[in-house]
Amino acid sequence: MTNIAIPLYPRFTALDAVGPYTVLAFAPGCTVTFVAAEPGPVLDDRGSLSLAATASYDDLPAPDVIVVPGGPGTIEALSDAELLGWIARAHERTRWTTSVCSGSFLLGAAGLLKGRRATTHWGWLDQLAGFGAEPVSERVVVDGKIVTAAGVSSGIDMALTLLAAMRDEETAQAVQLAIEYDPRPPFDAGNPKTAPAGLSDKAMALIN
Amino acid sequence: MTNIAIPLYPRFTALDAVGPYTVLAFAPGCTVTFVAAEPGPVLDDRGSLSLAATASYDDLPAPDVIVVPGGPGTIEALSDAELLGWIARAHERTRWTTSVCSGSFLLGAAGLLKGRRATTHWGWLDQLAGFGAEPVSERVVVDGKIVTAAGVSSGIDMALTLLAAMRDEETAQAVQLAIEYDPRPPFDAGNPKTAPAGLSDKAMALIN
Repeated sequence: MTNIAIPLYPRFTALDAVGPYTVLAFAPGCTVTFVAAEPGPVLDDRGSLSLAATASYDDLPAPDVIVVPGGPGTIEALSDAELLGWIARAHERTRWTTSVCSGSFLLGAAGLLKGRRATTHWGWLDQLAGFGAEPVSERVVVDGKIVTAAGVSSGIDMALTLLAAMRDEETAQAVQLAIEYDPRPPFDAGNPKTAPAGLSDKAMALIN
Repeated sequence: MTNIAIPLYPRFTALDAVGPYTVLAFAPGCTVTFVAAEPGPVLDDRGSLSLAATASYDDLPAPDVIVVPGGPGTIEALSDAELLGWIARAHERTRWTTSVCSGSFLLGAAGLLKGRRATTHWGWLDQLAGFGAEPVSERVVVDGKIVTAAGVSSGIDMALTLLAAMRDEETAQAVQLAIEYDPRPPFDAGNPKTAPAGLSDKAMALIN
């Protein structure tokens, strides 16, 4: 059984956590646990979704995989010594250490990205260099056992890539088919390179 | 303000609810509320994610929009008179009545799909005819004010389509860019027509 832990902190972005959760929780032989300083409900960045952590950091010190979500709450989480300490200690024994969106800033603050290729949401990509990382504008970046994903929805692509690497392609494909992940966005606006001019400011205003 | 309600029931599929939630909760002027028979935590189909309903059906009888998620729990929910009654009564006054995956079976059981074009997960599409619907193999199907989506992850595409219809394309595109929904699945296996031969049985075994 592969034990996967997703830490939750106030003002995380729900899809950052639930996208990878769904991919990994549907895979055979995986157990996914939401963890926090203390078990209990954790409120998201919109203030309208509350997801339960069922274990504390102390309960789950050595998962096989960690998936660190992003969200506006990373600003406060960057000085959360308990969370950062858990990430740093867990990483010593993980098979895979992963993040979605601004979750990579928490990997950085835990000291894991020095000299590493990594990514995050397009709106903050340059800032990854402040943690000694090499910012890469790709949807999923694999550097050794560290896998970082771009903004919010990219966690689904990251988790499928991860599942193929940690199991096999057929397992990842079976999960992809089970969740009918055959995306058909109605617009080609998911990337600042293809979005209509002037949309970036509007998009950033929605998430800040 | 547009009031959007997402009903939760035991063994719903988390991404069915959280995909559309994220799109709509990031949109300006939208309030999204998770509802259930009673407020409190509701456990998902994997038994490892618990999302809080913050209102009862009685608290929110007339939302502008409903988004009904699917999941293995629809089997029991098909005989949940309280849920089906809420869907039927809410539909009388909604601007939009929507579903993801097997959530369309709940619309059908509430009597809303007679003579309507509708979709659901590829694995159960034919069964929609049992509710008097015309099953359509498309990712998002709009018939009047009823919008149904295919399996699990298709709720993200549905919600962007819905947001463009109920607001405007620019708002939907800004949310798409904010959540960096520029999907790059590592495999072309999200649809039974493109997936490797023999994968459908493996996929269905994961979700049943």
